[in-house]
Amino acid sequence: MSQTADIKLQEQAKLLGYDFDGDIKIGGNYVPCVRDGHHIYVSGQIPRVDNTVVVTGAVGADVSLSHAQMAAKICVMRALALLQRALGTLTDIQAIPRITVYVQSAPSFTQQSEVADGASEVLFDVLGRQAGAHSRTSVGVLQLPKNASVEIDLIASIRSA
Amino acid sequence: MSQTADIKLQEQAKLLGYDFDGDIKIGGNYVPCVRDGHHIYVSGQIPRVDNTVVVTGAVGADVSLSHAQMAAKICVMRALALLQRALGTLTDIQAIPRITVYVQSAPSFTQQSEVADGASEVLFDVLGRQAGAHSRTSVGVLQLPKNASVEIDLIASIRSA
Amino acid sequence: MSQTADIKLQEQAKLLGYDFDGDIKIGGNYVPCVRDGHHIYVSGQIPRVDNTVVVTGAVGADVSLSHAQMAAKICVMRALALLQRALGTLTDIQAIPRITVYVQSAPSFTQQSEVADGASEVLFDVLGRQAGAHSRTSVGVLQLPKNASVEIDLIASIRSA
Repeated sequence: MSQTADIKLQEQAKLLGYDFDGDIKIGGNYVPCVRDGHHIYVSGQIPRVDNTVVVTGAVGADVSLSHAQMAAKICVMRALALLQRALGTLTDIQAIPRITVYVQSAPSFTQQSEVADGASEVLFDVLGRQAGAHSRTSVGVLQLPKNASVEIDLIASIRSA
Repeated sequence: MSQTADIKLQEQAKLLGYDFDGDIKIGGNYVPCVRDGHHIYVSGQIPRVDNTVVVTGAVGADVSLSHAQMAAKICVMRALALLQRALGTLTDIQAIPRITVYVQSAPSFTQQSEVADGASEVLFDVLGRQAGAHSRTSVGVLQLPKNASVEIDLIASIRSA
Repeated sequence: MSQTADIKLQEQAKLLGYDFDGDIKIGGNYVPCVRDGHHIYVSGQIPRVDNTVVVTGAVGADVSLSHAQMAAKICVMRALALLQRALGTLTDIQAIPRITVYVQSAPSFTQQSEVADGASEVLFDVLGRQAGAHSRTSVGVLQLPKNASVEIDLIASIRSA
């Protein structure tokens, strides 16, 4: 296993046009991720870049599907950047047993799965088909912190040393 | 431990009037379940039978409590059918540490727990009181993929060989 | 490790003005918590004290931020009381890998993180900075069982004997 995943993370950041090297801010009194044996639980991530939530509002009303997919990608990029800092390298990730995708939805918007596909794409692209394999749940919620359009949390399982 | 759980699954399918022997379709770029050590994480299931989501709309407005309970049963049956395929037999299941039940709710509908009881009933009926034991969270969301009335994900813990 | 956490739990209950020594009622056909190896999964808790849900309605409309924070504290106190009964003592808790905070929200209410801070505060106060460390997700949902303003579930990891 080479450093491919770490390189892919940088490439993906360039593609998105955002930089995840700075401080990954969180909005409250908790920790961004908790190591628990061979797992890391990553807190819910919104599409915040530095101090700005870059995609806000209800998907299907204020926000298009493609913008929501970009929001989902940014959420997952934040999660991966946090995992990289916690582990030193993403190549220690073995799988993503669960990702949950909360989409701030207009009442008639029913493409939460399609929004979540943005996140899945990044996981597979950065981690590969095996380490990027994930179970997924996507739901449409009424609101999210700071009016974010998407929020994503996940659990990563870590290779034994 | 006999094959009771596998037989019960078939009986429950007959009672519901649906067949879970075909392809269990999922609606996106992810995997239906991820094995993670002694656990299997099952992706969010909606009440889809073959290509049709059979219960859609907001519970408490478009959909009655009893229909929503049937939707919850179908979601859990799909999850159990996926577990059976992954494991070969349901008798390897030790417990269901978590099930989360998302109910597409009308604004004034507050019986999400009662909807979730449909899912709990199936778990206890198919797996028995011990292996079917589960912690549960049920919430009322604004929308769900494909306008599904209910979505359920779960984690199963697997007996050591 | 002294019994500090158990004493802190009692102090916190006094501060809140509620008593968690009675029966912790749940509203359906499931179990309040499931032991799974070194983890305990606690079912979704609403701010119920004895038979009454003490904070109901949409936060940002019917309920103020500070009342919602109190609701979050009560939810977590219930979860901790359940853990204490399951384990005998809270000092066996090693960390809280995940807490999910569902806030019944008015459409324009975006302070779900601030509501969740109420829960985080109790975790750190009762369990200390290390055992109380938790990853967190907070979302705004349309409804919750029994019109509760907040619902919280969590996973606790337990010290090996």
